[in-house]
Amino acid sequence: MKRSGRDELAAQRTGPPGTGLEPSAGLTELDIRDLAKGAAFLGSGGGGDPYAATLQLLAMLKNGAEIRLINIADLANDALVAPCGWMGAPTVGEEKLSNGREAGVGLKMLERLKGRKVDALIASEIGGSNALAPLILAASQGLPVVDGDGMGRAFPEAQMVTYNIYGLSPNPVVLSDTQGNCISMETVNAAASERFGRLIAVAMGGACHVFDYACSGREIKQHSVRGTVTLAIGIGRAMREAKKARRDPLEALFGHLRSTSYYCHAGALFDGRIVDVRRDTSGGFAVGSLTIEAFGAGAGIVEVKFQNENLRATAGQRLLATVPDIISVLDRETADTITTERLRYGQRVTLVGASVPPILRTPEALAILGPQAFGYSESYQPIEELNAWR
Amino acid sequence: MKRSGRDELAAQRTGPPGTGLEPSAGLTELDIRDLAKGAAFLGSGGGGDPYAATLQLLAMLKNGAEIRLINIADLANDALVAPCGWMGAPTVGEEKLSNGREAGVGLKMLERLKGRKVDALIASEIGGSNALAPLILAASQGLPVVDGDGMGRAFPEAQMVTYNIYGLSPNPVVLSDTQGNCISMETVNAAASERFGRLIAVAMGGACHVFDYACSGREIKQHSVRGTVTLAIGIGRAMREAKKARRDPLEALFGHLRSTSYYCHAGALFDGRIVDVRRDTSGGFAVGSLTIEAFGAGAGIVEVKFQNENLRATAGQRLLATVPDIISVLDRETADTITTERLRYGQRVTLVGASVPPILRTPEALAILGPQAFGYSESYQPIEELNAWR
Repeated sequence: MKRSGRDELAAQRTGPPGTGLEPSAGLTELDIRDLAKGAAFLGSGGGGDPYAATLQLLAMLKNGAEIRLINIADLANDALVAPCGWMGAPTVGEEKLSNGREAGVGLKMLERLKGRKVDALIASEIGGSNALAPLILAASQGLPVVDGDGMGRAFPEAQMVTYNIYGLSPNPVVLSDTQGNCISMETVNAAASERFGRLIAVAMGGACHVFDYACSGREIKQHSVRGTVTLAIGIGRAMREAKKARRDPLEALFGHLRSTSYYCHAGALFDGRIVDVRRDTSGGFAVGSLTIEAFGAGAGIVEVKFQNENLRATAGQRLLATVPDIISVLDRETADTITTERLRYGQRVTLVGASVPPILRTPEALAILGPQAFGYSESYQPIEELNAWR
Repeated sequence: MKRSGRDELAAQRTGPPGTGLEPSAGLTELDIRDLAKGAAFLGSGGGGDPYAATLQLLAMLKNGAEIRLINIADLANDALVAPCGWMGAPTVGEEKLSNGREAGVGLKMLERLKGRKVDALIASEIGGSNALAPLILAASQGLPVVDGDGMGRAFPEAQMVTYNIYGLSPNPVVLSDTQGNCISMETVNAAASERFGRLIAVAMGGACHVFDYACSGREIKQHSVRGTVTLAIGIGRAMREAKKARRDPLEALFGHLRSTSYYCHAGALFDGRIVDVRRDTSGGFAVGSLTIEAFGAGAGIVEVKFQNENLRATAGQRLLATVPDIISVLDRETADTITTERLRYGQRVTLVGASVPPILRTPEALAILGPQAFGYSESYQPIEELNAWR
């Protein structure tokens, strides 16, 4: 908090339009706090609650660590870039904290297997706590973090990533746990990688750190969702500034999302109180459903199905939104995102939807992360066609 | 069978006393067949039925492959030696055959992780099919096989090996499956290695190929059970020659075992018909028990508990034999060993016991492979003290 004056200033620097950050900027305390809020929203309920990772990062910043963000365009084509994050049920991650060393053990093994040093890190998913995971490792290793990710949100399974959708190999996959165990895999396809990885994550106590799809700067340029770290920071900042100015943070969120090129179709799907949460931690996932009842008698009910992330929202027979579009449950007073593991009976919430980047809506992408990939019978329908916003 | 004349001749060559083989000798068809029989006996019911591996090796020999066995004493101290074999329930291995490529995939990964070529292979366990596993890989890779192993028999769990008992690290452990998946592990201890490895073996279809405890020639000299390949060949040969001369193969087996320095306390524990077999394939093991009833009314019952391998034989309250000593179920007519996955109601059997090498009877060894390591309350009692043989 000592550095808030400088942080405010840094957060107000101008960068590329719509980002509010210069390339290669060192992130400030406020940036981290904004990123956590924005990433929680983009997580679509998943990616893990960013609370513990935020505290960890702020402590590192306080101790003088520098967190450098670099633009994808500034990456050397032959750089070795390592996507990373945590795998497992967020219900576990909430209680089983990182000791701060898991990712370092994995990085060392990845570099041994690749026979060279990693040049930069990138988030596997920009959703929830996983948006902050590469920052923590980067700060301790002196590596830069690439401004982008492989999901543009969070998804529950490792193969639901642009790098797989567009044909890169996950190998080697490196998983590491809190005890110091490190397991690396060369599998025959992304499905085998997810299957073995999930099992190992469960055996590692329900959650583990993962490196996969390590690839070249050129491949990251071709296949990443670009600019999502600064986008997430922008989302957090818009809500924070609205609260400071006593404006409605939800309206500020919608306004800001509509100004982005990725999440431009955005708005409320439903408003009400949570009357039922069914949740199991099984097979390494938090799986269940959520029922929201509108305020006032007979005003209707919405059901949301989730597998770590919220997958599909329906009002009776009517589909409100479905994967891969974003469905997040927000506290209707604070506009803070409630991740799936924190959903509770009685919470008063607004269900919010937003479109995802076009790279996640191609036929190749929908085959891997559309509703049918999750076992639903319907085809994907864009959220902006299902809802009459604006 | 075309080469049986030459094979007979080769099998009669003289080598070091009690081995019948010269160092560095190329193994013959008869050697392989004798090894399979001897290893099945030493498996104490486990290690997998050697039938399929024998056929695979004989086909390789027929196609001109050479299988070179080398004496432990002839190993260079700085050689890289790789113990190897298969992990999983033998009930699975019986139905799910190797495609012949699993071990090669693992070897490549092991060499990548060690940053150098492997100089020689050695069996992780001399029991059952696992005695033949390194020979198959060696024949295809042009590598020699060291005359020894890490168990002097077979044990169900990966940490039950002399290399662990005497302080070597299992890392890196490399597991590979029939589909081409390869998983390598650096774990914090041998127990974690077994826990993760067993889980991965189950996910790999119930059985997978494993490299672990790769170490130097010096370490192999210090911590292996020496000469067990030639000992197993000698056991098989003694029974084969007895059958040819129409002598009792069981008596020939006992006579031969008593002439060895390791398995010198040997004899029949019980004789009768199998009246009950209880067997589950669970947690990656074949777990169960076997009841043998003596011929003739009221002549008594013996129960044998097993976890892949036969662990403990009791007649009512009386203990007949317990791990780590060898307990094998033999067909009472042919003296062929019946591995645990092939036990059936009605088989007429002789239960045979034998002492294990002294390296497996030290306090350090008994802590890891004595009865208490398997959850039994009693302390280890040597088989020669429990039975009045000779």
